[in-house]
Amino acid sequence: MIKMSNNIKKIKAGILGASGYTGAEAMRLLLRHPGVELTLLTADRKAGQSVEEVYPHLGGYGLPDMISVSDADWSTVDVVFCGLPHGTTQEIIATLPQTVKVIDLSADFRLRNADTYAEWYGHKHMAMGLQQDAVYGLTEFNRDAVKAARLVACPGCYPTATLLALLPLVAAGLIDPLDLVIDAKSGLTGAGRGLKQNTLFSEAGEGLSPYSVSKHRHAPEIEQEVANSAGMLDTDIRVNFVPHLVPMSRGELVTCHVKLSSGKTAADLRSEFERVFVNEPFVRLLKEGDLPQTQMVRGSNNCVINVFEDRIPGRATVIATIDNLVKGSSGQAVQNMNLMFGFDETLGLEQVALFP
Amino acid sequence: MIKMSNNIKKIKAGILGASGYTGAEAMRLLLRHPGVELTLLTADRKAGQSVEEVYPHLGGYGLPDMISVSDADWSTVDVVFCGLPHGTTQEIIATLPQTVKVIDLSADFRLRNADTYAEWYGHKHMAMGLQQDAVYGLTEFNRDAVKAARLVACPGCYPTATLLALLPLVAAGLIDPLDLVIDAKSGLTGAGRGLKQNTLFSEAGEGLSPYSVSKHRHAPEIEQEVANSAGMLDTDIRVNFVPHLVPMSRGELVTCHVKLSSGKTAADLRSEFERVFVNEPFVRLLKEGDLPQTQMVRGSNNCVINVFEDRIPGRATVIATIDNLVKGSSGQAVQNMNLMFGFDETLGLEQVALFP
Amino acid sequence: MIKMSNNIKKIKAGILGASGYTGAEAMRLLLRHPGVELTLLTADRKAGQSVEEVYPHLGGYGLPDMISVSDADWSTVDVVFCGLPHGTTQEIIATLPQTVKVIDLSADFRLRNADTYAEWYGHKHMAMGLQQDAVYGLTEFNRDAVKAARLVACPGCYPTATLLALLPLVAAGLIDPLDLVIDAKSGLTGAGRGLKQNTLFSEAGEGLSPYSVSKHRHAPEIEQEVANSAGMLDTDIRVNFVPHLVPMSRGELVTCHVKLSSGKTAADLRSEFERVFVNEPFVRLLKEGDLPQTQMVRGSNNCVINVFEDRIPGRATVIATIDNLVKGSSGQAVQNMNLMFGFDETLGLEQVALFP
Amino acid sequence: MIKMSNNIKKIKAGILGASGYTGAEAMRLLLRHPGVELTLLTADRKAGQSVEEVYPHLGGYGLPDMISVSDADWSTVDVVFCGLPHGTTQEIIATLPQTVKVIDLSADFRLRNADTYAEWYGHKHMAMGLQQDAVYGLTEFNRDAVKAARLVACPGCYPTATLLALLPLVAAGLIDPLDLVIDAKSGLTGAGRGLKQNTLFSEAGEGLSPYSVSKHRHAPEIEQEVANSAGMLDTDIRVNFVPHLVPMSRGELVTCHVKLSSGKTAADLRSEFERVFVNEPFVRLLKEGDLPQTQMVRGSNNCVINVFEDRIPGRATVIATIDNLVKGSSGQAVQNMNLMFGFDETLGLEQVALFP
Repeated sequence: MIKMSNNIKKIKAGILGASGYTGAEAMRLLLRHPGVELTLLTADRKAGQSVEEVYPHLGGYGLPDMISVSDADWSTVDVVFCGLPHGTTQEIIATLPQTVKVIDLSADFRLRNADTYAEWYGHKHMAMGLQQDAVYGLTEFNRDAVKAARLVACPGCYPTATLLALLPLVAAGLIDPLDLVIDAKSGLTGAGRGLKQNTLFSEAGEGLSPYSVSKHRHAPEIEQEVANSAGMLDTDIRVNFVPHLVPMSRGELVTCHVKLSSGKTAADLRSEFERVFVNEPFVRLLKEGDLPQTQMVRGSNNCVINVFEDRIPGRATVIATIDNLVKGSSGQAVQNMNLMFGFDETLGLEQVALFP
Repeated sequence: MIKMSNNIKKIKAGILGASGYTGAEAMRLLLRHPGVELTLLTADRKAGQSVEEVYPHLGGYGLPDMISVSDADWSTVDVVFCGLPHGTTQEIIATLPQTVKVIDLSADFRLRNADTYAEWYGHKHMAMGLQQDAVYGLTEFNRDAVKAARLVACPGCYPTATLLALLPLVAAGLIDPLDLVIDAKSGLTGAGRGLKQNTLFSEAGEGLSPYSVSKHRHAPEIEQEVANSAGMLDTDIRVNFVPHLVPMSRGELVTCHVKLSSGKTAADLRSEFERVFVNEPFVRLLKEGDLPQTQMVRGSNNCVINVFEDRIPGRATVIATIDNLVKGSSGQAVQNMNLMFGFDETLGLEQVALFP
Repeated sequence: MIKMSNNIKKIKAGILGASGYTGAEAMRLLLRHPGVELTLLTADRKAGQSVEEVYPHLGGYGLPDMISVSDADWSTVDVVFCGLPHGTTQEIIATLPQTVKVIDLSADFRLRNADTYAEWYGHKHMAMGLQQDAVYGLTEFNRDAVKAARLVACPGCYPTATLLALLPLVAAGLIDPLDLVIDAKSGLTGAGRGLKQNTLFSEAGEGLSPYSVSKHRHAPEIEQEVANSAGMLDTDIRVNFVPHLVPMSRGELVTCHVKLSSGKTAADLRSEFERVFVNEPFVRLLKEGDLPQTQMVRGSNNCVINVFEDRIPGRATVIATIDNLVKGSSGQAVQNMNLMFGFDETLGLEQVALFP
Repeated sequence: MIKMSNNIKKIKAGILGASGYTGAEAMRLLLRHPGVELTLLTADRKAGQSVEEVYPHLGGYGLPDMISVSDADWSTVDVVFCGLPHGTTQEIIATLPQTVKVIDLSADFRLRNADTYAEWYGHKHMAMGLQQDAVYGLTEFNRDAVKAARLVACPGCYPTATLLALLPLVAAGLIDPLDLVIDAKSGLTGAGRGLKQNTLFSEAGEGLSPYSVSKHRHAPEIEQEVANSAGMLDTDIRVNFVPHLVPMSRGELVTCHVKLSSGKTAADLRSEFERVFVNEPFVRLLKEGDLPQTQMVRGSNNCVINVFEDRIPGRATVIATIDNLVKGSSGQAVQNMNLMFGFDETLGLEQVALFP
């Protein structure tokens, strides 16, 4: 296997919870990042195993073995990517030395309101102090804060695609934040590597399954950011959010059915996207009429987006697609890391989408 | 291969356009129908070929070879299933003897308004007289008319699932017919057997693709039936209809985001479904909270349905799933044939869903 | 859902281990079998659950709830289909009253040699007495014995396809039983419904994985039957057997690379197949040159087979395909039940393959 | 989209036949190659279209539009990757100026024997002079010749995997070159982007299909190289080669059933692999007992390989896997380009496999 070398001074990075899919994806990306050396991998249930045993496709690159998080020597890392289960994350991050920057891929620091967190995650938040310092890492809308942050809470995969599609329109007053119908579709990696009956090939293959209808934890996260963007923090904004499992491994697409503000048209939405996204390296607005497809982003950090007229007067449809493991998770995490450490924002994320 | 035999007096049936997927599915079902003998198969471009050459899985059953439609001897059939392209269908059906009943799987006789047909299909309708006699074959809502019909226009696959989900609610005044958002998903057989780049395995696999956003021909069909059911024939009803291609062969699921009439709840919708569908052999309302999945209907003539609260007050989500080739096409056609010829409505359609 | 009724006097059947895939498939088939009433379903870990909870696609048919095997009232059944894990099977079958016929889908009664069983299954066989009475249920080669049997051991899925392809040739002395290379491919249902990392959609999808190379338990089963057919019971026959997991749910195909006996040709093999299989209802020899594909048998009880010349002189390739859950398991079990109870051998197994 | 820049002096490259899958894959890789500028893309039937129209996932990178090959200005390129149909390739390459180096992905210059070419491709070779200069581009076994070549004929995808698995063993006399059974499996991209019924999603999905049994054009290519490696050019070596289409887009795996030379063992084969491949950047020999899977190489230029004992004494099984579009085609082409132009052999090919 090819080892990378170069002349950039490298930072040292660790991955907590490296045996999950977001951990594997972080390894894939960081192995080719010229400014990063991977020095720490933890996975409690796989402690003592080599990377090759846990992820055969990552064998041969000389990565360190998995260890238990309790055995980690934090002095060896400048930054950790944290892919632990919610709850656990809070406890561990609270114990890290201040010199270690943290990029969290869990849901633990996304919700600013303690009651909302408790309602959706079933237990009291155990590190609300840290929560107040966390920056919501939707990079395109939070660059300056991310640059200065010690703790970045990366958005969920669905919120990433949804908010890239909706926030510019909400912020510009072009659509009604109280009438957002988000019909979401995701590949199976979104459900993680844990063993569940409904994610077996024979159960999920050749089938389409809605799940968590009106009960998905990404709904309050979207609502929080929409309210924030609309300047309606005192309003109890509710969105319709219906996710579906699609028989593919990677990829996510949100079909957002929106109500236009009075006098606005789908063309106005496109113009706003053109204005907002013109210099974004990872957001691509398609030509008018062209349709986003998950095939356009597989393995890349890109978000592809477009807007369409609705047959119902006064409504429009906004469609956005990302690779849930890249822009929806580990890729956006690396994008944030680049900002936090002064690298070019696109470093290590240049990969072109893999199609077919 | 097993040949079927029994003591029921058989009718003779033909399939026009037998080389397409709906034709193959009609053969699959009719081969096991105790009241039908398949005596005529036409497929112009495959004329002269055996069924085995066109569909290897149907070899060995002693079916007649494919012939050109111009060579058909109509005196040998009591009924034809017509799976021809639109336009062609009109011309051929117009020439059939009155003694032959016709079950049309194309779009030619679904739209009652000549202007709407011309707008969506790009040419003037050539048999509007016949059109006036055609019965819209959504069996559950049109039984008596189907029984008496000579020409039945089977609904499109998307309208079948959508209308089973929405018509009872519209008819009962429980939802607003002017605010219907239908987010639809279908497997690849919905795109037919014709050779298109986007339906190649390597293009469609591992990917989700919206298509024909706000431009799909099933939208006006849904609008016509909703208007009819709502008693609003003079209103220009428009629905939002966004279909997506899902990487599976069979199966279709519609997620309908609806606005409740004032004071109504999701529970009211469930009650209406319970009332309307209680004796339907092919419609299954799931227990409260259970989610329809395409896996529940694969290969069967069933429609599985349920209703859910929306997080946005005053709204609900209705989800319905069918196998697009069975209840969405050839299965419903056989269901209609059973009514037209006095068979038990479920004859030949008893197959349990194939899972996994 | 449609309930079946008819005038045949019904036998009462139970399924032990009904929550696995072979159990579900047995339910699917027996629900439509006119001579069977399903009166007993056991599944220890799902005891107390309804069929609908365990298999949503089987809801609505009025099947009994799952109970623990220890709670079963054996006086209510004439026959049981046994889909329990190996080892457990022996214990339970040994306790059944003699009046109950047993069709075993496990591996417990397939191997006649106690040492071979112990070597491959890791423990001493606990019911060798019963083993001596068991009939190996490869129906096409064992009809008379099956008819008279109380206990039928249904073959493994791979042995079913492989032996249908090889036994006629071995028996006729057309190929060398000491040089059999069996390259086998199976869909994911072959790995069962148990939770394993490698059968998750995201792991198995878009990938091909060989497994158990030279170590699969179906190898000694094939060897036993080949030796038996060749009349070489004293020879330690070994076959090459390499199975692969294919990203599909159902279907199995074996590519058998064989050495021709001196002077024999691929055409001789075809002639023998023609002779042997001419009246078999479930074995279909394709026309010369046509290729078996799993798509031809999905959901059906058919085996499709053909033979091809090899580029290496003196060798040939025999290819056979079945649906592993039907002819490779529950379908063949029903076929055996039909013989054991005097039904038409094809009853309840008439289903045409589901394609596409 | 991110544009690449750097300080390496770039060569100019063209892709002939850029609308096919190998063309797309060459674009994907070369867009990220720091030593290459893509200046010419031809695709006769897509002439005048943008890359975005032909391959939406490659839009936004500023690539030139597709033109007809007859409009190409050869003075603008240092090298062309040629992904044209066989036959056509010969004609066009014969007209190129000598200053342009050629890396051919077609089959036109792989077979050294004019009669063999004519037999398998159905017409006389039209550029046998060029053929004599062509270097067979299986990089690992031909480095020096590739470095010096003007015209490199890249191996077929199956021969690449097969020969990496077999040539070291044949060359060392460890296996019998007259008894090679190659059971091959490939994803659908191996069948190209042309429209064929059997590569539609609904036909190929959920199915496994053998094809071209004993008739595949890669068989004589393998035979040529085996004979060459064995020093048996005067022997009419024939291999068994049976390919199968697997329902996945990318990936190829060959299961080679071989006969050991007298006294040799599977362990001897492993030792030879260890010796031969120890410094190969793209060939990875797994640990003893670990199984190659296509999932390990998706999107990467790696070949993963291992060897196993057979149950039949005196035989062994060698398994190798590659991504057919990378190491099996465009990746190996770039690897050859790197050698031809003095780049580091791994430049632009560092991508880690994409899993899941």
